[in-house]
Amino acid sequence: MNITIQHIIDHLTAKVELPKTTVDQLITGSPNQTVTGVFVTFMPTQHVIEHAIQRGANLIIAHEPPFYNHHSHTDWLADDPVYENKRKLIENGGVAIYRCHDAIHRFQPDGITEGLVQALGWSSSIAYRKPEADLLSFPEGMTVQLIAEHIKRSLGIEYVRVAGDPKMVCRRVAVLVGFRGNGNLTIPLLHQEELDLIIAGEGFEWETPEYIRDAVQQGKQKALLMIGHAESEASGMKLLSERLATTFPELPVHFIGEQPVYQVL
Amino acid sequence: MNITIQHIIDHLTAKVELPKTTVDQLITGSPNQTVTGVFVTFMPTQHVIEHAIQRGANLIIAHEPPFYNHHSHTDWLADDPVYENKRKLIENGGVAIYRCHDAIHRFQPDGITEGLVQALGWSSSIAYRKPEADLLSFPEGMTVQLIAEHIKRSLGIEYVRVAGDPKMVCRRVAVLVGFRGNGNLTIPLLHQEELDLIIAGEGFEWETPEYIRDAVQQGKQKALLMIGHAESEASGMKLLSERLATTFPELPVHFIGEQPVYQVL
Repeated sequence: MNITIQHIIDHLTAKVELPKTTVDQLITGSPNQTVTGVFVTFMPTQHVIEHAIQRGANLIIAHEPPFYNHHSHTDWLADDPVYENKRKLIENGGVAIYRCHDAIHRFQPDGITEGLVQALGWSSSIAYRKPEADLLSFPEGMTVQLIAEHIKRSLGIEYVRVAGDPKMVCRRVAVLVGFRGNGNLTIPLLHQEELDLIIAGEGFEWETPEYIRDAVQQGKQKALLMIGHAESEASGMKLLSERLATTFPELPVHFIGEQPVYQVL
Repeated sequence: MNITIQHIIDHLTAKVELPKTTVDQLITGSPNQTVTGVFVTFMPTQHVIEHAIQRGANLIIAHEPPFYNHHSHTDWLADDPVYENKRKLIENGGVAIYRCHDAIHRFQPDGITEGLVQALGWSSSIAYRKPEADLLSFPEGMTVQLIAEHIKRSLGIEYVRVAGDPKMVCRRVAVLVGFRGNGNLTIPLLHQEELDLIIAGEGFEWETPEYIRDAVQQGKQKALLMIGHAESEASGMKLLSERLATTFPELPVHFIGEQPVYQVL
């Protein structure tokens, strides 16, 4: 039986109820197309798309959009040469791009958080799960510094950003992926769950880290590790690719990562 | 004559039309209070407030809010101990906090951008000014790496984040402060102004740096230096403090900075 893009979309969305305003959609390509190969990725960059085409894959499942805005609008990019080149590459290469963002965050448990915690080897440290975060309980002796080094080693990244004291001991920790690093999510968690440390992807600089700064100035034991949006979410897409490969054994399914988008100078 | 808080607010807002939804407001204190001393700052942190009280200043003029959200809402923080401690410190210390955000961005030219470009010693390199950015023209031989080192040295910061090639030569550069680092502002600028480099404060990780990554993969000469929200805006508040000291010579007016909220590990 030929597997079409629609078969894969149906599989990805079978057990979730997407919000009415979901960003999940087939951004390019046609649902009836027969799938020759799947590339799963965090960000469908120019490089990822080129690589998929070279390898004969005609479906990219991406967590983020190809055109630099969450809602995949393109009108504002009409004359932009980078957008034009990328759009032509996609068209000429015959690559379909399906955005899998809201669905995977609605898996039970959240497929992105699950992938990160698994990649960090912390699944057995989960105390409990909330929709927006995994709450972890660490043994004695873990410090912010040691946790940062473990994250860098596990994810193969060069740096993380920290607010608070690197020498602080951490027992109660929450992991929040992607753009869940803002104060409206992290600050109630820090207080209600009596957390020592928040590990998050990305968030406004004037919210969570400034709260941590004030908490430390007040003598409280609080810290934050901001590890990067992609760095916090790519592992979840890798886990998804492994599951798709099991569900569709007749299809070549590969995960493809990217270098961190920023380096520090 | 006694100078009241209202006198200073009137001075700050005399030449600008604030939007109806402005965040600029007297967050604590009373407009009729006589001012004993002014601390000007980017972020009214616990430490800044403690320091102002110790020095006998009863007015803090801050660019950002004290309570970890842009609109200075506090209902969601009702039981939070860090918020409670900070609120009591402000009350007991009798410190008024005035938020000067929208006004200074509406100065002609934008007082925050002006302060940053001045602090970087680049005022004579300004080709022209747009409301959201200063456009600079650099002499031959400036690279992303050299510019990054200059910024770090000038602002006294430990690191900046870069997307693109550090060795790339830059002639046409735009400087955007604060949260103006998003794609809706930077991407049209990059294209229309034929820029090599964007220098910005903060922005979504999935927008501008991903555009730069794709542009580079397409063989284009584009780069981004993200220097941090506070790092891009504090100099503008320092410039404001110098101007206030000149306007109100009878008042002690001081600028107070903070350490960068993040360090890299």
